[in-house]
Amino acid sequence: MTMAKRDTYTPESLLAVAVKVFNERGYDGTSMEHLSKAAGISKSSIYHHVKSKEELLRLAISRALDELFAVLGEPGAVEGRAIGRLEYVTRRTVEVLLAELPYVTLLLRVRGNTDTERWAMDRRREFDHQVAELLKQAAADGDLREDVDVRLATRLLFGMINSIVEWYRPERGGAATSDEVAAAVIHTAFSGLRTHR
Amino acid sequence: MTMAKRDTYTPESLLAVAVKVFNERGYDGTSMEHLSKAAGISKSSIYHHVKSKEELLRLAISRALDELFAVLGEPGAVEGRAIGRLEYVTRRTVEVLLAELPYVTLLLRVRGNTDTERWAMDRRREFDHQVAELLKQAAADGDLREDVDVRLATRLLFGMINSIVEWYRPERGGAATSDEVAAAVIHTAFSGLRTHR
Repeated sequence: MTMAKRDTYTPESLLAVAVKVFNERGYDGTSMEHLSKAAGISKSSIYHHVKSKEELLRLAISRALDELFAVLGEPGAVEGRAIGRLEYVTRRTVEVLLAELPYVTLLLRVRGNTDTERWAMDRRREFDHQVAELLKQAAADGDLREDVDVRLATRLLFGMINSIVEWYRPERGGAATSDEVAAAVIHTAFSGLRTHR
Repeated sequence: MTMAKRDTYTPESLLAVAVKVFNERGYDGTSMEHLSKAAGISKSSIYHHVKSKEELLRLAISRALDELFAVLGEPGAVEGRAIGRLEYVTRRTVEVLLAELPYVTLLLRVRGNTDTERWAMDRRREFDHQVAELLKQAAADGDLREDVDVRLATRLLFGMINSIVEWYRPERGGAATSDEVAAAVIHTAFSGLRTHR
């Protein structure tokens, strides 16, 4: 029998536990029972904070999406030449991904079995679309090489960025810092995508 | 009740069905019952071809790994300057990935719950390691930019390549060809990673 601990959770700290379990077991493979065990509180205590497992998913994914979409409204993302805005958005996307690693990991792994997952996928597509528009504008400005199709370039750029959740482990000794990873992505992607001066 | 069809499978055609189901449901989520339904033959007919679900996994993953490791032995991968060999291996890896898409997808998704999965992950690491050695050699030759750490560069290169299984759909109209995708990866990654002349 598990000793239930006193429920001292805030919605935020409970969410952190839930996201960890979702990422380990997959959202579909996680039951309220699993969440209750991981949090060390009863299921009814969890229902005191949230209506359902899906509400936890929505809260977690909203956190990732809010941070990502906020980037698109920052001055660096809206002012100046498209290529500069694109590099800015790429750098900040990597920073958000690393700062909110479990939340963005969850966002990137959802597959669309529930309304919340389908909504998350729609919002992701919208984000990708807005970045793709920046690539298009940069291409129109003559700042991107012409022999890589803009749609392919967008896919490869996000492929590189999103792969970070698969291998970045902040707790590992000698791991690259957030700044180093962001700089490596920028250097790798853009000295390639940008036309040579 | 399902009408069982006559078992006209070869080991290869049965494997193709199994890989499709593994990729759709996940290996853990697939039972012999699922395979039997998807193939339209009885479980005992499947057991006539293979000993177990795990044997199907091992056959499928071997196919992907054999093709990938074969690349490393091709003349373009062993002759000449490291940067040229690295570009060659990158191009051929993308080609193998696209030619054997379901098999490589399965390989990239295994997570290590069985001996076969752990073996697959070891072999993947060995492949990545051999490519990382090429990057190291190219860096030592002065052919890679110095401001991106070789380990990070390897991660980002594979991040970009491996992401292809997530978005490439050969059946979609207007999709890029294998050559276009390979060229886009080379252009994007190496005009960035290679020092400017």
